[in-house]
Amino acid sequence: MKAWEENIRKVVPYVPGEQPKLDNIIKLNTNENPYPPTPKAVEAADLFDLDLMRKYPDPAASLLVEEIAKRYGLKKSQVFVGVGSDDVISMAFLTFFNGKKPILFPDISYSFYSVWADVYRIPYVTPALTGDFKLRREDYFKENGGIIFPNPNAPTGVYENLEFIEDIVSHNQDSVVIVDEAYIDFGGKSAIALTEKYENLLVVQTFSKSRSMAGLRIGFAMGSEKLICALNDVKFSINSYTMNQYAIHLGVWAVRDEAYFQRNVNKIIKTRETAKLRLRELGFSFPDSMTNFIFATHKTVPAKKIFEALREAGIYVRYFDAPRIDNYLRITVGTDGEMEVLFGFLEEYLRKQ
Amino acid sequence: MKAWEENIRKVVPYVPGEQPKLDNIIKLNTNENPYPPTPKAVEAADLFDLDLMRKYPDPAASLLVEEIAKRYGLKKSQVFVGVGSDDVISMAFLTFFNGKKPILFPDISYSFYSVWADVYRIPYVTPALTGDFKLRREDYFKENGGIIFPNPNAPTGVYENLEFIEDIVSHNQDSVVIVDEAYIDFGGKSAIALTEKYENLLVVQTFSKSRSMAGLRIGFAMGSEKLICALNDVKFSINSYTMNQYAIHLGVWAVRDEAYFQRNVNKIIKTRETAKLRLRELGFSFPDSMTNFIFATHKTVPAKKIFEALREAGIYVRYFDAPRIDNYLRITVGTDGEMEVLFGFLEEYLRKQ
Repeated sequence: MKAWEENIRKVVPYVPGEQPKLDNIIKLNTNENPYPPTPKAVEAADLFDLDLMRKYPDPAASLLVEEIAKRYGLKKSQVFVGVGSDDVISMAFLTFFNGKKPILFPDISYSFYSVWADVYRIPYVTPALTGDFKLRREDYFKENGGIIFPNPNAPTGVYENLEFIEDIVSHNQDSVVIVDEAYIDFGGKSAIALTEKYENLLVVQTFSKSRSMAGLRIGFAMGSEKLICALNDVKFSINSYTMNQYAIHLGVWAVRDEAYFQRNVNKIIKTRETAKLRLRELGFSFPDSMTNFIFATHKTVPAKKIFEALREAGIYVRYFDAPRIDNYLRITVGTDGEMEVLFGFLEEYLRKQ
Repeated sequence: MKAWEENIRKVVPYVPGEQPKLDNIIKLNTNENPYPPTPKAVEAADLFDLDLMRKYPDPAASLLVEEIAKRYGLKKSQVFVGVGSDDVISMAFLTFFNGKKPILFPDISYSFYSVWADVYRIPYVTPALTGDFKLRREDYFKENGGIIFPNPNAPTGVYENLEFIEDIVSHNQDSVVIVDEAYIDFGGKSAIALTEKYENLLVVQTFSKSRSMAGLRIGFAMGSEKLICALNDVKFSINSYTMNQYAIHLGVWAVRDEAYFQRNVNKIIKTRETAKLRLRELGFSFPDSMTNFIFATHKTVPAKKIFEALREAGIYVRYFDAPRIDNYLRITVGTDGEMEVLFGFLEEYLRKQ
């Protein structure tokens, strides 16, 4: 190894779900929305002035920040935007988890948390979820350098109510607490309301799931002006212009078309509830999901085996080869048609096992 | 100050050039290209399938990486892409400048370098440019944890030839050397050719200047497979999907249309050379520029005064209130028409001083 190689930061990168380049795949592996973004965004795309491309975007992405602030009843100074919620949370780790004490997040959770902690050299402890994948609130009452968890949790889909969230925040007024609400729109209640009372609470959301815009890369955080200002300072120490012109332009329309958003989310919730019944009939069990995915295990057939059979059949779901969850499949809720193909295949396949 | 506030990372953020929201501004302050991107990208934009938006982009941005690799005669594994060259360089700081020894960059240079070093807590030393804003090669022959400089340098516009670059790289085979070539296409010769010989040399370029796509946010790095692999590992530890679908899609066309690129760059070079004559006639002097800007000082009137008068007249140029350069204006090369307005104003204005 050469001298310059010794100075390279050693990391174990996050591995995202596969993005197959084949057509005719039923893609239920990355929790994307099966429906397109609002037609208003499509119209706006046609009106987009390509000449704008030559100019730098507004570094503050003001149009988008303003629209989000309006939608959630906040001030512009309480909203931060980034290139997907991964960018937002990574920035939040760098900004807020800067002490010597370990931060806390669940052992079964979004697997990027430990990757960010490692890359930024933040010590961490991961309290174990209960056997039925619930957070134990007392685990988060001890001294820490910060707390983060998704609500609903991923990849389990389990939702905790606001009383639970507030209990954790109120016990942790000396740390920044981040609630990662990537899936909150599918039936949960956001902790945004609590940010007024707790200035150390940051709520993160994304356009990638409920707003059908994973490809545009828009995430956002909401909280007190102090938190948002600190995030912006760090952002402006790394990259002034993160959101491209097009994302700002179309993102605005995704927020404006509230009616489409509600319809879209409700369609997915309906399909999810039907899917729960069908999966149970097929011998699966799962924690109750408040997201656009179901985290299911089969009573007799190993998850890995089902995963491989599905893949063979061109149906992609997510499988995590990790302790405690290696007998589960994370199945994204697709269209009714896609789910029919999935159930049709499973019915056939499981009959033969 | 509350306990959680003490854990916030303290930074002094970079301040980007102003993006005025007014129309009728002649904007020569952020080195944008005055001409639109290739019409091929405009056509491609119309063909862009909005339904793609709901899906995550290819995390490797393969289409774009492949196109860049082809254009520069490299393998795909030798190209890294990011959200503007700021994202690429910031990632390179985090990846490569990871030792205890100070990194080196010129005292007068891209002002983001010290901001990144601060945010990532990288020690640094900034050797002074000569009186006529040249790098002194011997300054970079001492022990260090890494080296970065722009070529041509910003905001001076001064270009060093490949013999000079190679001398620095060959003296520094124990560190990663980064040449930031944001402005190389306006007449300089890229150090890409040297990356074959030196596997510790990283060359960074951008679509924001010569390819008229500042608004799309595309930057890229080229170098040995070892360097690119290390960069990708860190990138995948921070954000899997940084380039949005639209940027990947249109960026490809910017690279493919080589003829447009050459014409665009040549137009700017021609305008720049005329501008040099006119500025000299008006009493300005400047280091010879190989970029799309000119870094000029006036023989009698202070730069700050001219800057303010121009701003008043709706002509934005960049002024840096920093030691050694506070009597200079950085003037972006605009269209011939824009430059005429600038010269017309200056002629009038300077006559009255």
